[in-house]
Amino acid sequence: MDDNHINNDEAVDEHPLEGIMNPRSIAIAGAGNNPMKMGALQALSIIKDGYRGKIYPVHPEENVVFGCKAYYTPKILPARPELVIFILPAKHVVKLLEEFGERGARRAIVISAGFRETGPEGEELEKQLLEVASRYGIRLLGPNCLGVINTENSLNVTFVPLEDRVGVLGMASQSGTYITQTLPYLQKKGIHFSKAISVGNEADLDLTDALEYLGKDRQTRAIALYIEGIKNPDRFLEVARRITPHKPVLAQYVGGSAAGARAGSSHTGAMAGPDHLYDGLFKQAGILRVHSIEDLYHQGWVLATQPPLKGKRVAILTNSGGPGTAMAHICNEGGLEVPRFSEKLQEKIKEHLPPYASAGNPVDLTFHLETKELSTAIPKLIMESGEADGLMIHGLMKTGFLKTIYPHLADLVGNESEEKFAARFNDDKEEALKLPRENKMPLILSSFFGREDDYTSAYQDNYYPVLDGPEKAARGMLALHQYNLARKKAALGPGELPPQSAPATKIIREALDSGNRVLDEYSSKRILSCYGLPVSEEELAYTAEEAIEIAGKLRYPVVLKGCSSELTHKTGSGLVHINLENEAAVRSAFSEITRAAGKDMAVLVSKMIKGEREVMAGMIRYPGFGPSVVFGLGGIYTEALKDSTFRLAPLSRTDAADMISDLRASAMLEKFRGMPAVDKKSLGAILQAVGNIALLHPRIAEIDLNPVIISGKDPVVVDALIILGNGKDH
Amino acid sequence: MDDNHINNDEAVDEHPLEGIMNPRSIAIAGAGNNPMKMGALQALSIIKDGYRGKIYPVHPEENVVFGCKAYYTPKILPARPELVIFILPAKHVVKLLEEFGERGARRAIVISAGFRETGPEGEELEKQLLEVASRYGIRLLGPNCLGVINTENSLNVTFVPLEDRVGVLGMASQSGTYITQTLPYLQKKGIHFSKAISVGNEADLDLTDALEYLGKDRQTRAIALYIEGIKNPDRFLEVARRITPHKPVLAQYVGGSAAGARAGSSHTGAMAGPDHLYDGLFKQAGILRVHSIEDLYHQGWVLATQPPLKGKRVAILTNSGGPGTAMAHICNEGGLEVPRFSEKLQEKIKEHLPPYASAGNPVDLTFHLETKELSTAIPKLIMESGEADGLMIHGLMKTGFLKTIYPHLADLVGNESEEKFAARFNDDKEEALKLPRENKMPLILSSFFGREDDYTSAYQDNYYPVLDGPEKAARGMLALHQYNLARKKAALGPGELPPQSAPATKIIREALDSGNRVLDEYSSKRILSCYGLPVSEEELAYTAEEAIEIAGKLRYPVVLKGCSSELTHKTGSGLVHINLENEAAVRSAFSEITRAAGKDMAVLVSKMIKGEREVMAGMIRYPGFGPSVVFGLGGIYTEALKDSTFRLAPLSRTDAADMISDLRASAMLEKFRGMPAVDKKSLGAILQAVGNIALLHPRIAEIDLNPVIISGKDPVVVDALIILGNGKDH
Repeated sequence: MDDNHINNDEAVDEHPLEGIMNPRSIAIAGAGNNPMKMGALQALSIIKDGYRGKIYPVHPEENVVFGCKAYYTPKILPARPELVIFILPAKHVVKLLEEFGERGARRAIVISAGFRETGPEGEELEKQLLEVASRYGIRLLGPNCLGVINTENSLNVTFVPLEDRVGVLGMASQSGTYITQTLPYLQKKGIHFSKAISVGNEADLDLTDALEYLGKDRQTRAIALYIEGIKNPDRFLEVARRITPHKPVLAQYVGGSAAGARAGSSHTGAMAGPDHLYDGLFKQAGILRVHSIEDLYHQGWVLATQPPLKGKRVAILTNSGGPGTAMAHICNEGGLEVPRFSEKLQEKIKEHLPPYASAGNPVDLTFHLETKELSTAIPKLIMESGEADGLMIHGLMKTGFLKTIYPHLADLVGNESEEKFAARFNDDKEEALKLPRENKMPLILSSFFGREDDYTSAYQDNYYPVLDGPEKAARGMLALHQYNLARKKAALGPGELPPQSAPATKIIREALDSGNRVLDEYSSKRILSCYGLPVSEEELAYTAEEAIEIAGKLRYPVVLKGCSSELTHKTGSGLVHINLENEAAVRSAFSEITRAAGKDMAVLVSKMIKGEREVMAGMIRYPGFGPSVVFGLGGIYTEALKDSTFRLAPLSRTDAADMISDLRASAMLEKFRGMPAVDKKSLGAILQAVGNIALLHPRIAEIDLNPVIISGKDPVVVDALIILGNGKDH
Repeated sequence: MDDNHINNDEAVDEHPLEGIMNPRSIAIAGAGNNPMKMGALQALSIIKDGYRGKIYPVHPEENVVFGCKAYYTPKILPARPELVIFILPAKHVVKLLEEFGERGARRAIVISAGFRETGPEGEELEKQLLEVASRYGIRLLGPNCLGVINTENSLNVTFVPLEDRVGVLGMASQSGTYITQTLPYLQKKGIHFSKAISVGNEADLDLTDALEYLGKDRQTRAIALYIEGIKNPDRFLEVARRITPHKPVLAQYVGGSAAGARAGSSHTGAMAGPDHLYDGLFKQAGILRVHSIEDLYHQGWVLATQPPLKGKRVAILTNSGGPGTAMAHICNEGGLEVPRFSEKLQEKIKEHLPPYASAGNPVDLTFHLETKELSTAIPKLIMESGEADGLMIHGLMKTGFLKTIYPHLADLVGNESEEKFAARFNDDKEEALKLPRENKMPLILSSFFGREDDYTSAYQDNYYPVLDGPEKAARGMLALHQYNLARKKAALGPGELPPQSAPATKIIREALDSGNRVLDEYSSKRILSCYGLPVSEEELAYTAEEAIEIAGKLRYPVVLKGCSSELTHKTGSGLVHINLENEAAVRSAFSEITRAAGKDMAVLVSKMIKGEREVMAGMIRYPGFGPSVVFGLGGIYTEALKDSTFRLAPLSRTDAADMISDLRASAMLEKFRGMPAVDKKSLGAILQAVGNIALLHPRIAEIDLNPVIISGKDPVVVDALIILGNGKDH
């Protein structure tokens, strides 16, 4: 292969990050020999942590950098570098990228800060960077990122040295710190990345690309995302939906509060949106949301290392009542069961317990110095019983504990060393480590001892999570359960759009032509009708006589409402009259409306819809997001309870069904106090339609259906409002 | 002092735990010389961890135990032991306790298991134990506990050796593991107990006694409780209320779910009640509730070591955007502010920042190797600015990080050792540690480096919390904020009971005499009226004519309801007719009711109360608890939303006000959609009265006021049900 020639052998469908994570050669631009500079640390990681490709330092003055021959310009490199890593000041990057482009480089990581995140000047510099990259077909990560880690080929581009251990958790982060500062911390926890990617400013390759890459990566068994804002939620959703059915994805999102957004945007420059939109997005994508970096790592590691939970039954084995109780409590709250074991199994377990210990599940051995019961004897009974789908063990420990008590015992055990003292005790780690794999059962351990304990380190080194607290172990088990629920839902994908309705388009065009941004209730509902939504039967009346005639057709009782695009909030202003039983009532209501409006006004005569249950549905366009559908409690409770849920359009049938069960008050939509269960198919269709209408008509800025009254089992849209925009805000 | 004589010099008001935590002499019953037995470990802790009082091992065979002269029976002890610790098998304890009683011992810790927690036989043994104790005036801790720790006098009765460091966090636990297994773990976190008490079966001294003792203890600055069930919630509340205004108390409660309760009760034998009752109890007591043992320790340590947060403004200083964003997010969600700093302060801070870093708050230095800005320069500016009430710092580290990168640099820095290499970097720990104390400002640090880092260990050793994650630091700051809110409320104490109402007593007596356990709506409301509750105006009618006459007096519209003690759920059965506007409607409703009832029935004619807002109030007696008042959303939402809150009677005015603001839908009770704010004083008085009625009339088992309709601004009880019990269930 002529290595000086631009290499065109890249597979057509190779992911753009492949050349960044798995390059055959790397040029490092900017690293000198001063180990006290940050850039040097990155160069050292690449050189020293086991990467076996070619390394070309490029430096204007040095001939050798950390033992590698250096080159003063890309032009004289002996071969085309597959990847270039920039760790020099921002102002030099653009020019140098051009030179590397000339030399045939097609992938770059720009660690350098000083671009868009610093203001207008930096933004301009970032534009130039992208322009050069695009001219040469260079795909780049960063700028303002902290590099990547690939434990498969021992490539470490971060400034923190990396233990040589192959991990299975993939990580993509909008904060570089979570793949650098945390590395020693993760080692102590026995958690290891497969691949980790700091995306920085996401000028070119972004978080979604990283997700996509990790989704395809065979070494990666679960994916953890740290998110402050997603650039293109639609694409993110599409990519995530392809991954989550077969690989767990977890996300921590922290952009949603005022100060959070400020801190976030100053860091990544990415768009931060409100919390509940992201919440809906993650649900829709089948992504498990966590709320701390520790949970992201812990639960990610559980999902990456443990087999699926085949059912909901969890066994808990402990040497202490408190942790067992805490684990059971959390499992129960999260929808798992901690079933009492059969008498038969309890009898078998009791053979291994002191007389006062509990065998029912949680099994509490109470504290003693031998580990065998906790590590093998009872786990074996539980795993082979068929009475549990997952196991948690708390308190398994040996050397950690023995070291702790050794100072008190040292003079009593003569000259015996700590090691010899420890050897007095049983060791069955080999069997213990085999058991769960043989039984294909997830195992999560909780221990207050870290890697100073031989059981903790042995389990961790064999890809069993050992977490530092019972509640954390239990939340890990819940993550397995939640993934089971999420993967089923995400598998279905988005729904299909119906064709655009010509009559609806006409109503919108007419409103725009007449300068109306707000559609009146009647027009709003006609649009909804075009897409099959169940709206109250109604007609417009311009005189009391017309109103009476319509009421006669619809049959009493009816509702009269003033109808004008100038009215958005009608209640309480004398413009709405409900439950009218006869002609006299209609006549009086009509004149009331005219009086309240202070002028002649069209009056909508609708059939009165009765129902105790009210919900609302709507659509908003949040900056940076496509149309989002909202569903919530209706009537006066909408505002007071904020019991609502969001999804991005288009909604799948599963998305719509999930929205309905998301409500805290969802029990109200089941068979409830003598009322029938709501027709969820029909309600779900309303939610899907609201999203579809927004996609088919970009000029619609907002839709508000409130209330949708549940009449018997059927949802009926009783009031509706559609607001138009310029179609460009979003 | 004649030491052989029973000592009567105990102060009259000395707490019974004082002699257990601070004894001048200890007899250890049951420890031999075999270091492989658990009991030996406890004896060794007492002997080796620095306790300076007299120690008398008592053992049937040994003459010397671990170097201390041993005695074969209490009878031959050279002096009265103030405290006896039992670590021998349960069956020997009772007899030996008697002998120690003879010898003058008045305090005991019974570590031994095998009592009530094992079943009827053990229960009998525990009774005997108590009988002997009471005969000799012995107060005892346990049985089935793991001992106590007092770092003030270096007394350690647990089986785990203890570092000699005086702590400030008091702990009382219903699981012994949390003051034993966790000791090495806590040392690694730099968290140290003042005193710790494992209460075991609570046969005599219980968790509330431990709380009371720790409340009085001057060394203890905050109290952490691990709870599986409280024996006497009323006394617990009374004791906690006295403590929380001046000393923070935190609790983890995990007894509330089915499996949790099973595990818990098998361990402590204590009563476990439903979660929401404990939730209310803690709120009422001014106790902060946490949901994991880690939070209990972390937040306890923050509250024990940091000065109060004087306001809501938090400053965040970090070397990385992600952790800063995460901290800000959690602070905002929890009601703290992360205010943007003034331009003036930002200018000053910017002098210490790289050009692309953010000074607005969070201040993000971005990563670099020198610590000065993070440890002193910027903290000083922030603390002296008056623009923040508390500070969080993430990422302060030196030797931990330098050790991490040293392997990459070792050969580049020649023969320089790790230590010398570290000495190249600035060290300003002394100044850094002084700053917060000088400024009386709470400081919480977050670091991914443990005690291997010199900054982490220095801060920890100087009583600043260094927690292993930004979210944990932020939750610590929230705990300071929540304590500020809680202490104000708890300070007020319970409300006073009004006198018993003779007419109400009469109604109840008549119902009992006639064998009715369910009071009809009219009688129920009359009782409520006796205590000043606002009920709908109404009278009973036995004929349609009477009903019409009453309706005329009350003025239309009215409501007619069948009224009988046989009816508890009336809606939907044709027995309720609302909004009746005229005589004809009343007449027709009356006959409808007679028809629906299938017989003549008294009919309640009430004035129609209108209001869009409905709430409910009630009272239940849960086993082990006194009467509890419940408040929630009314109407169909009561069940669907489970938006309710509990408190133990009697309620203070603050308790009642808190219940109202507890509701997720509380916004609905403010000025809301054109409706006035609810009269909270009147609503609160209803809640207080419901609790008072239950206390004044023990025969009332349940009260249910649903709905209470908000008419204008006034709550009116529209339906009510009182159920009587035998007065003994509770």
